[in-house]
Amino acid sequence: MAPDFATVFARLAPHMAALDVFLREQIAAFEPEIRTMADYCIDTSGKRIRPALVFLSGWQADGSVQPDLVRVAAVVELVHLATLVHDDIMDEAELRRGRRTASREYGPEAAVLLGDALFSHALHLAAHFPTTSVCRAVADSTRKVCAGEIIQTLRRHTASVTRSDYQRVIDLKTAELFRVSCALGSELARFPAGFVKAAAAYGRQLGIAYQIYDDLADFFGHERKIGKTLGTDLVSGKLTLPLLTLLDRLPQEKGAALLAEIRGEQSPQLGYWLKHMEELDVFGTVAEAIGAELKVGEDALWPWSELPPTALLRQLGDVLRAQVEALRCP
Amino acid sequence: MAPDFATVFARLAPHMAALDVFLREQIAAFEPEIRTMADYCIDTSGKRIRPALVFLSGWQADGSVQPDLVRVAAVVELVHLATLVHDDIMDEAELRRGRRTASREYGPEAAVLLGDALFSHALHLAAHFPTTSVCRAVADSTRKVCAGEIIQTLRRHTASVTRSDYQRVIDLKTAELFRVSCALGSELARFPAGFVKAAAAYGRQLGIAYQIYDDLADFFGHERKIGKTLGTDLVSGKLTLPLLTLLDRLPQEKGAALLAEIRGEQSPQLGYWLKHMEELDVFGTVAEAIGAELKVGEDALWPWSELPPTALLRQLGDVLRAQVEALRCP
Repeated sequence: MAPDFATVFARLAPHMAALDVFLREQIAAFEPEIRTMADYCIDTSGKRIRPALVFLSGWQADGSVQPDLVRVAAVVELVHLATLVHDDIMDEAELRRGRRTASREYGPEAAVLLGDALFSHALHLAAHFPTTSVCRAVADSTRKVCAGEIIQTLRRHTASVTRSDYQRVIDLKTAELFRVSCALGSELARFPAGFVKAAAAYGRQLGIAYQIYDDLADFFGHERKIGKTLGTDLVSGKLTLPLLTLLDRLPQEKGAALLAEIRGEQSPQLGYWLKHMEELDVFGTVAEAIGAELKVGEDALWPWSELPPTALLRQLGDVLRAQVEALRCP
Repeated sequence: MAPDFATVFARLAPHMAALDVFLREQIAAFEPEIRTMADYCIDTSGKRIRPALVFLSGWQADGSVQPDLVRVAAVVELVHLATLVHDDIMDEAELRRGRRTASREYGPEAAVLLGDALFSHALHLAAHFPTTSVCRAVADSTRKVCAGEIIQTLRRHTASVTRSDYQRVIDLKTAELFRVSCALGSELARFPAGFVKAAAAYGRQLGIAYQIYDDLADFFGHERKIGKTLGTDLVSGKLTLPLLTLLDRLPQEKGAALLAEIRGEQSPQLGYWLKHMEELDVFGTVAEAIGAELKVGEDALWPWSELPPTALLRQLGDVLRAQVEALRCP
């Protein structure tokens, strides 16, 4: 049977508990007026995949909780939360993990500043490691995540997006933070440089695969289970892999109609395109693409099979595969 | 005769030229899609007071340009530009230094991300000093600037703002970055710790005084000269010192009418309140408050009169005093 998040994350319980304590302490460091808002965001943070990558990449045989890893896990999670807060302003999304987004709860203006406060708190924590390497890595990743988001926003409602444009955006906006989580986790745990590189490569591939899964779930997900509004990519005019795959297979006239919706010239017909996606097996092709990305990451880990993190990191890929399958069979 | 910006800044010409070259190089480091937008922001950056504080606080007798100071000047300017970009989204301002704001030029959504990209690039530069101290100082200041902005935004259209609330907000949102500019400039130039502390205290006071001046100019400025829309604080429901001073002096009924405008229940009557400000000498009182703040900063510098930066830093206070006088006599 395929592993699920609960099984893989069970062993991370003490690490996640330590992270939770640490994050709660950070909220106290915010100005009083901001605490409720910051607290609200941290509550909606979902599965904490990036912290899990930090902990698993730096996993010790005894499963001990390393304070440095807890701090780095908090840094990557805060950067991620900040991007979510700003991302939800762009997407005009209503729900995130079954709750109102910060933008809906506090207004888009306060959400801009809340994201800034989370960003700068993350960098503040990163700057308090003894050397500059963590701060450098995090600042550089944050730059790339922002670049990915900005390019995606500029391209909304444009019909000329290619697969390589799509790959570049998800590499920047999602895979980069997965990559740096693995790199910092394994580096701070003093694993050999070769493994740090392999873990980083695996993290990147898992991030790419995860984003493609997320884009697939935007069409094939179950609103209540995923806890967010479906079809937002079509509504906001984003050409993700499911849509690019569908476009390749549609006859010219229908393709032109879909592109008119992407450009915002026609109102989006989610159900109509979903039916075409099912007929043209878009799901199968995108699921294969996810598998191929994971395979590249798993190959990078191959030479390091004897280290404690390796088997655990691989399980995350298996969990993602199982999640994709769960979308296929409602 | 009082000095003007041109006189004080003339000696900074080679430093500012080096900063300009450095900032242009940074634009090349952004993803291609973002360069035009980043370039647009850097062009509208105005007088570069924070870089001037870095250079003057670290001033050497020979006036030489120190590469470390150029880098730190770029860091504080980028943080400042990022806050301007996000601030203009909040304020719904049309103009900034005589040009359309980034939010108007590229839309509020792209402006959110552009601000993020500028923030993270600043931290990226800060993280590339050999020790973590610059990155720590900048991350901590950025946190405070964001907190100041957020508190100000949450309090918009509320009538219960006190003078101490106002002081706290301007200390966070403006004075903090002035303070850290002076602290880092003098520290990187290896001046004694006592002077670093004094320069930081002076920077903070100058920042407080500058923000009060800016709030005064929002009522008494000349739109064409200042290059931004006037009366924005009244329109956006912000109780700044000129309005707080006016409220103290208005009879109860008129005070209630002004507060109704602040709460957004009545449309703002800028001209009407300006007339009352003139009758009740609000200008004189606020100008005195600016002078008092500057005096505290100048006293902090007193023991360090023999160091090269001291006289130059004091001149900035004199320039600000002259700017306040220029508002008085149109």
